[in-house]
Amino acid sequence: MKMDFELQQKIHRLYAKYASTLDDGPLQDWPKLFVEESLYLLIPRDNYDENLPMAIMRCESRGMLEDRVAAVQNTIMHEPRYLRHHITNIDAQLTDQGVVTATANYSVIEVVEGDLPKILSVGRYIDKIVMVDHALKFVEKKVIYDSVLVPNTIVYPI
Amino acid sequence: MKMDFELQQKIHRLYAKYASTLDDGPLQDWPKLFVEESLYLLIPRDNYDENLPMAIMRCESRGMLEDRVAAVQNTIMHEPRYLRHHITNIDAQLTDQGVVTATANYSVIEVVEGDLPKILSVGRYIDKIVMVDHALKFVEKKVIYDSVLVPNTIVYPI
Amino acid sequence: MKMDFELQQKIHRLYAKYASTLDDGPLQDWPKLFVEESLYLLIPRDNYDENLPMAIMRCESRGMLEDRVAAVQNTIMHEPRYLRHHITNIDAQLTDQGVVTATANYSVIEVVEGDLPKILSVGRYIDKIVMVDHALKFVEKKVIYDSVLVPNTIVYPI
Repeated sequence: MKMDFELQQKIHRLYAKYASTLDDGPLQDWPKLFVEESLYLLIPRDNYDENLPMAIMRCESRGMLEDRVAAVQNTIMHEPRYLRHHITNIDAQLTDQGVVTATANYSVIEVVEGDLPKILSVGRYIDKIVMVDHALKFVEKKVIYDSVLVPNTIVYPI
Repeated sequence: MKMDFELQQKIHRLYAKYASTLDDGPLQDWPKLFVEESLYLLIPRDNYDENLPMAIMRCESRGMLEDRVAAVQNTIMHEPRYLRHHITNIDAQLTDQGVVTATANYSVIEVVEGDLPKILSVGRYIDKIVMVDHALKFVEKKVIYDSVLVPNTIVYPI
Repeated sequence: MKMDFELQQKIHRLYAKYASTLDDGPLQDWPKLFVEESLYLLIPRDNYDENLPMAIMRCESRGMLEDRVAAVQNTIMHEPRYLRHHITNIDAQLTDQGVVTATANYSVIEVVEGDLPKILSVGRYIDKIVMVDHALKFVEKKVIYDSVLVPNTIVYPI
C-alpha cells in the first residue's frame, strides 16, 4: 500500500460508512467495518490524558460489537431519536507495517422529537486501519470523548 | 470523467461554494450551482425512511430556486441572523453515465444577536452532480433533515 | 508548488494539526504553525462584512502568539474545560506567487464539567499559507466569527 489518492479516498469512505451505518443504518453493518479480532474502546478524556487505561466500554472482538448492536436494537425501540455524526480533521498516515494510523475529531448530534438538535457527544478517534480482502477495516478504534457527563445513551456506539 | 484527484477536488469545491453562498453570500449565486432543470427536495427523515415521497419543499427548476432566494431576501431583512454550514463525510461515486452521486452529512448553526450559537438543522444530502461547461452543478439535491421540529426559518435554503 | 494530491494532503494536515494543538495540546506547538512574521486577526463578522478593519485581537508576529499561549496557560488553570474544533469545507487555491489561499468553516465546541457540550464559537477562516523548509505554515489567518456575543473565553485561540 502507498498513501496515494486512492488510499486516502478509501479511508475517507470508511469514515463516511462508519457514520452512515450509525446514523442511517442498517446498524448491523457497523461491526462489519471492523476485523474479527479488533479492539474498540470508549475512554473518557480525563482518563486518557492521565494515562489511565480504564475504558468505560471495551469490545475485544467483532462478536462483542455485534452483541452491542443487538442490545441497542432492543433498547432503541422505546425511545426514538436520531443521531448524526460529523467526522472532521481526518489525518491518516501509512506506517511501514502497512497499517494506517488515523486521528479525527467527531461530534454526534441528537434529535429527539419536539426538541432542537443538541450535541450528545464530542471528542476524537484514534484508529488503526488495515486492508483485508481489498477493503479497509478498523483493527483498533479508541473513542476519546471530551464530555464529562456520562449520558444515559452510552450503550449506543459512537 | 474519471474519479481522480481533480474531480474529487472539484466536488469538494462545489460543496464549499454551496455552503459559502448560503452562509456568506451572495445568496443570488446559490441557484447558479444547479442546472436549469434541477430538482431540489427538502424531506423530513421520517417520511424518507418510510418511503413516503412527500417533501415539504419541492423546487423543480433553477427558476424556482431563484424565487426562493428572492423570498428569503425579502424576509431576512426583518430578523437578522447568521448561518454556518458544516458539510462532512462527503462520499462521491462516479456512475457509468457520467453522473456523480454523492452523500454527505450537514449541520446548520444559527447565530442570533445576544444568544449562543445553536444547531438549526441537521441531516444529510443525497445528490446528483453533472459536469456542464467544465463546471460541476447539482442536477438533483435531496435534503433529508433529522429534525422533527419544523422551524419557522424553513423558507431559508439548507 | 503545484496543487496536486500531495499539496492538498499537506494543507489538510496543517488544519488537522491546528485543531489538535488547540484541542489536545501541546498548546505551545500552536504558534509553530505560523511563520515568524505572521498576522493573526480575530474579527467579528459584522465588522468584516462592512469592511471595517477593526479586529478584536491582532497578533502581528509569532512572538505575540506565544505570549497569548502563555496568557492562556495561566488562565486556563482556574477553570477547566475542553475544546473541540471542527474545520470543514476547506477550499484551497494555489496562487501564481506560490502562496496558498484557503477558506474554511469552523466550530468550537466547549465541554465544561457537569454540562452538555455547547457551541462556543462558529465562523470561518480566511488564510494564507506558505511553504517554509518543506513545511506549510500560516503567514496570515483571519478568524471571522459569526457570534455576536463576546464570550469571556476570548483569550483562548480559535
